[in-house]
Amino acid sequence: MKSDQGRQRVVLEGVRPEIDRGSFPIKRTVGEEVVVEVDAFADGHEALTVLLRYRPETVQQWTDVPMEFLGNDRWRASFPVTMVGRYRYTVTGWVDRFVTWRRDLLKKIEAQQDVQVDLLIGAKLVDEASGRATTQEGRVLATRSKELRSQETPDSERLRIALSAEVETLMAKYPDRRFVSTYDRELSVVVDREKARFSAWYEMFPRSCSLKPGQHGTFKDCEARLPYIASMGFDVLYLPPIHPIGLTHRKGKNNAPTADPGDPGSPWAIGALEGGHTSIHPELGSLHDFRKLIEQARTYGIEIALDIAFQCSPDHPYVKEHREWFRIRPDGTVQYAENPPKKYQDIVPLDFETDQWWELWNELKRVIVYWIEQGVLIFRVDNPHTKPFAFWEWVIREVKQTHPDVIFLSEAFTRPKVMSRLAKLGFTQSYNYFPWRNTKSELTQYFTELTQTEVREFLRPNLWPNTPDILTEQLQHGGRPAFASRFVLAATLGASYGIYGPAFELGEDVPYQTGSEEYLSSEKYEIRQWNLDHPDSLRELIGSVNRIRGENPALQNDWSLRFHEVGNDQLLCYSKCTSDWSNVILLVVNLSPHHVHSGWVELDLESLGLDAEHPFQVHDLLTNAHYMWQGPRNYIELDPHSVPAHIFRIRRRIHTERDFDYYL
Amino acid sequence: MKSDQGRQRVVLEGVRPEIDRGSFPIKRTVGEEVVVEVDAFADGHEALTVLLRYRPETVQQWTDVPMEFLGNDRWRASFPVTMVGRYRYTVTGWVDRFVTWRRDLLKKIEAQQDVQVDLLIGAKLVDEASGRATTQEGRVLATRSKELRSQETPDSERLRIALSAEVETLMAKYPDRRFVSTYDRELSVVVDREKARFSAWYEMFPRSCSLKPGQHGTFKDCEARLPYIASMGFDVLYLPPIHPIGLTHRKGKNNAPTADPGDPGSPWAIGALEGGHTSIHPELGSLHDFRKLIEQARTYGIEIALDIAFQCSPDHPYVKEHREWFRIRPDGTVQYAENPPKKYQDIVPLDFETDQWWELWNELKRVIVYWIEQGVLIFRVDNPHTKPFAFWEWVIREVKQTHPDVIFLSEAFTRPKVMSRLAKLGFTQSYNYFPWRNTKSELTQYFTELTQTEVREFLRPNLWPNTPDILTEQLQHGGRPAFASRFVLAATLGASYGIYGPAFELGEDVPYQTGSEEYLSSEKYEIRQWNLDHPDSLRELIGSVNRIRGENPALQNDWSLRFHEVGNDQLLCYSKCTSDWSNVILLVVNLSPHHVHSGWVELDLESLGLDAEHPFQVHDLLTNAHYMWQGPRNYIELDPHSVPAHIFRIRRRIHTERDFDYYL
Repeated sequence: MKSDQGRQRVVLEGVRPEIDRGSFPIKRTVGEEVVVEVDAFADGHEALTVLLRYRPETVQQWTDVPMEFLGNDRWRASFPVTMVGRYRYTVTGWVDRFVTWRRDLLKKIEAQQDVQVDLLIGAKLVDEASGRATTQEGRVLATRSKELRSQETPDSERLRIALSAEVETLMAKYPDRRFVSTYDRELSVVVDREKARFSAWYEMFPRSCSLKPGQHGTFKDCEARLPYIASMGFDVLYLPPIHPIGLTHRKGKNNAPTADPGDPGSPWAIGALEGGHTSIHPELGSLHDFRKLIEQARTYGIEIALDIAFQCSPDHPYVKEHREWFRIRPDGTVQYAENPPKKYQDIVPLDFETDQWWELWNELKRVIVYWIEQGVLIFRVDNPHTKPFAFWEWVIREVKQTHPDVIFLSEAFTRPKVMSRLAKLGFTQSYNYFPWRNTKSELTQYFTELTQTEVREFLRPNLWPNTPDILTEQLQHGGRPAFASRFVLAATLGASYGIYGPAFELGEDVPYQTGSEEYLSSEKYEIRQWNLDHPDSLRELIGSVNRIRGENPALQNDWSLRFHEVGNDQLLCYSKCTSDWSNVILLVVNLSPHHVHSGWVELDLESLGLDAEHPFQVHDLLTNAHYMWQGPRNYIELDPHSVPAHIFRIRRRIHTERDFDYYL
Repeated sequence: MKSDQGRQRVVLEGVRPEIDRGSFPIKRTVGEEVVVEVDAFADGHEALTVLLRYRPETVQQWTDVPMEFLGNDRWRASFPVTMVGRYRYTVTGWVDRFVTWRRDLLKKIEAQQDVQVDLLIGAKLVDEASGRATTQEGRVLATRSKELRSQETPDSERLRIALSAEVETLMAKYPDRRFVSTYDRELSVVVDREKARFSAWYEMFPRSCSLKPGQHGTFKDCEARLPYIASMGFDVLYLPPIHPIGLTHRKGKNNAPTADPGDPGSPWAIGALEGGHTSIHPELGSLHDFRKLIEQARTYGIEIALDIAFQCSPDHPYVKEHREWFRIRPDGTVQYAENPPKKYQDIVPLDFETDQWWELWNELKRVIVYWIEQGVLIFRVDNPHTKPFAFWEWVIREVKQTHPDVIFLSEAFTRPKVMSRLAKLGFTQSYNYFPWRNTKSELTQYFTELTQTEVREFLRPNLWPNTPDILTEQLQHGGRPAFASRFVLAATLGASYGIYGPAFELGEDVPYQTGSEEYLSSEKYEIRQWNLDHPDSLRELIGSVNRIRGENPALQNDWSLRFHEVGNDQLLCYSKCTSDWSNVILLVVNLSPHHVHSGWVELDLESLGLDAEHPFQVHDLLTNAHYMWQGPRNYIELDPHSVPAHIFRIRRRIHTERDFDYYL
């Protein structure tokens, strides 16, 4: 047994937040707080001092914050994170003999007991502390100690000194930490920039951006599209892979097994004679054009996000140059992707079990770093769940070590535990099951889990009502009202969300076939032409909602989400707020794309910072209508064919006669 | 990065049971099962093999049990524990290329695809396995591999071999474990003997056992009391401290600050001229007498349990011989116990912060081992929460290393997290809040927590309706019916329970003063005389219930407890069963000591192994009454003044005409 372990009497356990025993960091964005709790207790009845310690990972020195006792052996404190990068935190505590002595002295005085010996005990504690203090404060403590034990000091004066704020403060500054217990782990926080928490994504195929029908779009065409995207208020423009596309086994329109001449192929079949993951598809333009697009986008407040799809077409340079990174079949061919009985012969997966896995990992890291060097700081990662978890944990950590601003969005539409693991190991944001959560019960349950449980510490959901792979049944059958309500849900349930456009705003809703979630004439396999000026476009609604998101900090976080009762299963009511209730947004969405629905909401007033006594105003930010409400119960009616949702800002301050100029 | 870490693709997490990341062992008794679950998954869609590994701590070799897939990435397996001592378990898993290959081959065959190349891939896998196998089985595998790749073998025969049970079994026996993932911890199980789980304790002051009024009882008197205790069916006889009692500041009757001549003092004021913790109070008899009592008790199936109270009277030999183990006040006196403004001057606590803590720890361990060597294997530990947790963890581990049969009962009536921590760190059984859980809602909530949550993995409750320190208000005001119902609750809600007698069976219910839970004329401070033959004694009821406990294994476990609805808040209905439902006990207790109560129970039939179709018999083991019931809803009426409870054994098999001799 180590020399002092036997005297470390304070137990520290149940630290929250803590992910899987500290195996993974929690996530925050710059400016947020980390609230930490711990169970701390010792044998006996003495008083404890418990400290929260934190530091940026690059700083050696801990900053200590005294923790507050909450009852039931629970303690709490918090610290702010002010820089991107990693922070560490842990807790420490000890049985504090001076605090105990002071507490007990007060009780004894109250019981009118003799405290002569107690004062001598206190004098000794103060004297010991003087040895731990700076010269100047040590001198003060030594003097006080002497006074406490001196028979010449009047008793009343000795008591005054014993209980003085001066002594209390100095003793807290120089405590006896000999038998301190320290929590057995340092926990980590990854601090990202704000966009990790609050972002509006727009996905678009550059090759469909040409204004000339049938012509392959270019980065220049994308530039021309920027004002349109900016007018809707998006701040991330995500492009599917921009690399050369393989010819071997290229897929035709609607995923046909063979391509017709002129079919452009899937951008995810990466690699051709012209190059691989660090090359650009020649028809899109040059690297220079791409960098220019990034710059232009920036002037509109838009960041370009690229797709990271670590897979190859059979024509990828890796296949020739690094045959050892692929699995070779006994007939000498390279193993293509398959999910028996399905075969994906236009794709050859990298073999992460190769003996040269370390070289492979480093090459893939080089690809990411290459694009960072071109100015890309946001990556949407394609199917991360088909590459080893250890690889992602390593590569994200490595990249963020030097580029802590980088954001990785995990596109893992897979089983819940796999999805969670990817978020834990480092992905900044995560696709999730939102596309398939449609009913009130589904939405309430799922978003309560995402925002009110431990999951929120590591998984930041990014909500997509559609993607090039997902045209949900709700959208297929609900028409424009379904697109509108799913849009409002995505943009307000989630601080981060995205749409695949222009398919989304133009209400593209025809599936490849009945029962399929694939689009007919999917842009994955062909160039499409879009009529952006179609009168049914949701462009205006989207612009309004994004403006409201920008103006209302309540909608810029996920954690404050609360659901409120409504006596109608087609109406979903929820709210978000800032921590000081300076901004409170209440939403009601009609989930039915078909019918007008009405009902009585039962607001949880407390969660809105309201009380039942005072009336309040709800101001619909979409329609600019104002209503005066009081108490929890209020009437709602929504027509999906006009506006399928209320986005109310709650204003607590109602004018009364006292505000009238002549009142006084 | 370590050489193979990058290729360990299986993630293992969420192992249950696991206490605080494996910091503490779970608890079992000999013959029980340990059911283990884990989340196991890898990237991609390949098949996994997951194994549970276990071993007694003294054995190096693991035993592997294949885990069963439950869905949602969860796997389960179990292992039996057959010896007292410690076991270890962990889990391991890998992406199994052969299992994947076989699964995919079946799909391809079903889809009538060409599998020539697949057979060659399989042949290679089988060939590799031959190198890992024993000579004989390796030869079989090599032959099968050759057949699989031979063009001369007919295709149908190659398919038969590929999918044969022979190859499947051998491949499972010699898998490719190169990239195996192993859970990062070995978890522990402490396996105790059966009494750790199932025990009936009787606490008794030896000094009150004399038949002559006023005379100090002896171990010989205790021997004479054994038939009485055995007739009630107890199997543990727990004695308060049997050591010499201090004279300095000795307490008088009813905890008077000063003792009168002849007052015997509190047995917990341990230590006098005659000796300390390894000595025997001379008036009780000799060590020889004590050992004889142990032997005699054994013939009645009773074990003697001693009290471990690590504190001293001012007269304890330690105070002179090991002054360094105490805290010395500035006036040179030894610091007595205090909880300001209260002072306990008859007790001086050991100072676990002494520089000589290691010597102190070893001395205290020596005390325990000393009594083990005298034949004591059960200890009730007094106020463990006032000594450091680290000490208990060490000393219990040390003692059980050589004496795994020893049982430690923690008497920590303190805050919940402290109580839990003591159970986690090693105490075999724990006093708990049962004395203060009286209402239906309190009992249901508390015992659901104790028996249906993770708590049950480490905390085994021992239920005491009274102790020398605790005369609850329920007992003070409820008369004999309260004692009877509290007894039945203790003995059936808990597989382990105890009473402080003869106070309990004789219904001693007068508190020292109103609002106090202390007894008037407490045996802690004086010798008492008990009339064991009082006609109101609960002796017979106690005997019956203990007999029923012994005959019905359902009552010998805590985990099967289930509560059933009754439409009357004064009636508590619950059941226990064996895992195969061969023994099912249903209880109904009238919680009111005053009134007859009746109501309809709503049985959860499934938990009782019953269905609504067939009638069943309930046999009251207390009154021998039989009732025929069917379905969930049945009527109950209980009079607290006769028998306050039903203890039904459920008999599913009802005689019908087919059982009649002449039926056939």
